Amino acid sequence: MAEGKKLAGAGLRGQVAGKTALSTVGKSGSGLTYRGYDVKDLAEHCQFEEVAYLILKGELPTQAQLDEYKAKLKTLRGLPQALKEVLERIPKDAHPMDVMRTGCSMLGNLEQEDTSVLGVFPNQEDCVDRMLACFPSIICYWYRFSHDGVRVQENTDDDSIGAHFLHMLRDEAPSELHERVMNVSLILYAEHEFNASTFTARVCASTLSDIHSCVAGAIGSLRGPLHGGANEAAMDMIEKFKDADDAEQGMMGMLERKEKIMGFGHAIYSESDPRNAIIKGWSEKLAADVGDTVLYPVSVRCEEVMWREKKLFCNADFFHASAYHFMGIPTKLFTPIFVMSRLTGWAGHVFEQRADNRIIRPSAEYTGPEIRKVTPIAQR
Amino acid sequence: MAEGKKLAGAGLRGQVAGKTALSTVGKSGSGLTYRGYDVKDLAEHCQFEEVAYLILKGELPTQAQLDEYKAKLKTLRGLPQALKEVLERIPKDAHPMDVMRTGCSMLGNLEQEDTSVLGVFPNQEDCVDRMLACFPSIICYWYRFSHDGVRVQENTDDDSIGAHFLHMLRDEAPSELHERVMNVSLILYAEHEFNASTFTARVCASTLSDIHSCVAGAIGSLRGPLHGGANEAAMDMIEKFKDADDAEQGMMGMLERKEKIMGFGHAIYSESDPRNAIIKGWSEKLAADVGDTVLYPVSVRCEEVMWREKKLFCNADFFHASAYHFMGIPTKLFTPIFVMSRLTGWAGHVFEQRADNRIIRPSAEYTGPEIRKVTPIAQR
Ligand SMILES: CC(C)(COP(=O)(O)OP(=O)(O)OC[C@H]1O[C@@H](n2cnc3c(N)ncnc32)[C@H](O)[C@@H]1OP(=O)(O)O)[C@@H](O)C(=O)NCCC(=O)NCCS
Ligand SMILES: CC(C)(COP(=O)(O)OP(=O)(O)OC[C@H]1O[C@@H](n2cnc3c(N)ncnc32)[C@H](O)[C@@H]1OP(=O)(O)O)[C@@H](O)C(=O)NCCC(=O)NCCS
Repeated sequence: MAEGKKLAGAGLRGQVAGKTALSTVGKSGSGLTYRGYDVKDLAEHCQFEEVAYLILKGELPTQAQLDEYKAKLKTLRGLPQALKEVLERIPKDAHPMDVMRTGCSMLGNLEQEDTSVLGVFPNQEDCVDRMLACFPSIICYWYRFSHDGVRVQENTDDDSIGAHFLHMLRDEAPSELHERVMNVSLILYAEHEFNASTFTARVCASTLSDIHSCVAGAIGSLRGPLHGGANEAAMDMIEKFKDADDAEQGMMGMLERKEKIMGFGHAIYSESDPRNAIIKGWSEKLAADVGDTVLYPVSVRCEEVMWREKKLFCNADFFHASAYHFMGIPTKLFTPIFVMSRLTGWAGHVFEQRADNRIIRPSAEYTGPEIRKVTPIAQR
Repeated sequence: MAEGKKLAGAGLRGQVAGKTALSTVGKSGSGLTYRGYDVKDLAEHCQFEEVAYLILKGELPTQAQLDEYKAKLKTLRGLPQALKEVLERIPKDAHPMDVMRTGCSMLGNLEQEDTSVLGVFPNQEDCVDRMLACFPSIICYWYRFSHDGVRVQENTDDDSIGAHFLHMLRDEAPSELHERVMNVSLILYAEHEFNASTFTARVCASTLSDIHSCVAGAIGSLRGPLHGGANEAAMDMIEKFKDADDAEQGMMGMLERKEKIMGFGHAIYSESDPRNAIIKGWSEKLAADVGDTVLYPVSVRCEEVMWREKKLFCNADFFHASAYHFMGIPTKLFTPIFVMSRLTGWAGHVFEQRADNRIIRPSAEYTGPEIRKVTPIAQR
């Protein structure tokens, strides 16, 4: 009967909960590596599909492998009719992450993973490829139907997942700049070791449950404002500021009131988030592209104030807010984009957990009442 | 930059991952207590709704409180039309836990929890009461529609959740014996400290996500055959044996082939699972009630063989299989019943996590490649 060891801190911070060959956080390169490659290097030289291949299969693809992989994904963009009918029944004011969670869960009913032999998962990679290809369709189908009354055509001929998403959203193929930024963004969000949503997926996988359960659970965790939800919250905040000075004043007030400021701080990084400089650079380019003179300077001022006042730095989410906004993406779709990308990391971790599994079942410190007897209800 | 402490064992076994006032496992009483009450005591003297009240609100209710609580739950049994339409689109051969996960997720779209103020959850108890009342409706609505072509009437006047479930399943109110066994079963499954599905719910809650995400995630973890799925797997096994001697032979073969035998063993208990003696007693009564001369003796022999050969004991799931079977419940609905019950424990833990939160974000031991440079794709 396990007595349990006391933890150094809450939230399992700094506790090793398993092994991974997928990534390092705060250890080498610029601070984040996927299978040994610096995320900066990947964001500069790769398409998202290459990185997805790397995460899911272990090595970067050759050109022929990449072509084949992208061709496969292209064939998997369409949604089953029953799934469309479910999405049509989700109201306009629903939370888009609830839509993603429900879409993923419904897909699991229609295209169940083969788990017939205990601990053997013969089509796990196919299930993940399917989700990778059709998650943009799920969110856009619901969004366009509920907001514009349009049944979007989900079989586009776009080259990449990012372009496919933007195309469905706006009924036209995106510019080269926008497609490039989507690639970078999806690469930056793809994998991040034992973050809360990935850990959720691993706990679920450790019961030998199916992949749609693991991913639906992870989506639910990513939804939280302390996790993926932060990019939307950051947008809501910066949108309220008129200019950089207004932002300075607003931030000082929030800090005085000890409010949590979304898009800042990190559980592991202590001085900077390597993804920030990259997305910040692209946000600046996009600001120039649309002729912005407010949102980008406001964002930069927020960053300065937080560092000066609290030594808190922007995490991956903060400059994603303005970047997505400059591309015309509605705020409520920010976290679903995170899902399209992080799916690769979740899946990589599920594969790892399954390959060397023991059910994840920690202990708790008991703080409740001593043993007592039930009083008959008439005497309570 | 956290280096992380090596774990004593895999799966966080014996590691304290947080605090709880909800239950103890393997520490006092018969081995399982809910808020200080021995599960044996509760199963003897209480209705499931009393135990749900205890878990969710901290104390056993008075008669007046219980009456009011049950009256409230009764009003919440009906399903929204859109949810019914979703359930009608899930095929007959879907996994019933996928149906539960999807039903819960869809409910979250239609009746979103209020999370508008960061870290404040004003209607969390109402959301849980709603799920407690309507989860039996979800599974029965889908089951009856897909299997019998019937749109079941989900607003029954039954006194308890267990009776409501059985009534919808069979179009008639259950016998006193069956209602009593449902109560006991729901009590036994209600709460179990930091098991994998509950821990999933807590990790999700730690991102400050909504309650439907926490519960949908937990359902996905409970689906796994190493966790809640074990009661169904146990049924599939015992059904194959002709009699006790056949069971003995079959079990010996499985042990020789080193197969995992579902319904045996436990991550925390080392000598027995206190829930087993209780459900075993009721399974014996039900066997007498239906005049069974095969399944119960087969189950007893399995128990004897596993103890004799491997010192492995029945966990809560093993005799649940025969008990449910004797009540005429289809095997595929076993784990969904577990959901109806464990929802209380999940919710209690989500409330605790929210009340004293830090995001759950462990570290990992890195086993991947050293840092390397991206080779241009043409040269790979
Ligand atoms: C990411 C986050 C959840 C990490 O949580 P954590 O590991 O528990 O954070 P830390 O323990 O390192 O925080 C240290 C201190 O800084 C404060 N802090 C951290 N992030 C903060 C923020 N964004 N705004 C204001 N204060 C913050 C904490 O409140 C804590 O103060 P305290 O010790 O007085 O309570 C946290 O920084 C946060 O909530 N950030 C905002 C949400 C966000 O952007 N999430 C996306 C992450 S990629
Ligand atoms: C519950 C369970 C997941 C606990 O996992 P765990 O904490 O990792 O188990 P342990 O480390 O205590 O197991 C010790 C040994 O007994 C074996 N064992 C445990 N349960 C077994 C079972 N049901 N059948 C056969 N062997 C079993 C393990 O394989 C292990 O052997 P090994 O050291 O040679 O690998 C595990 O017992 C199990 O898989 N049981 C069957 C599924 C089940 O009934 N689940 C419902 C739980 S309420």
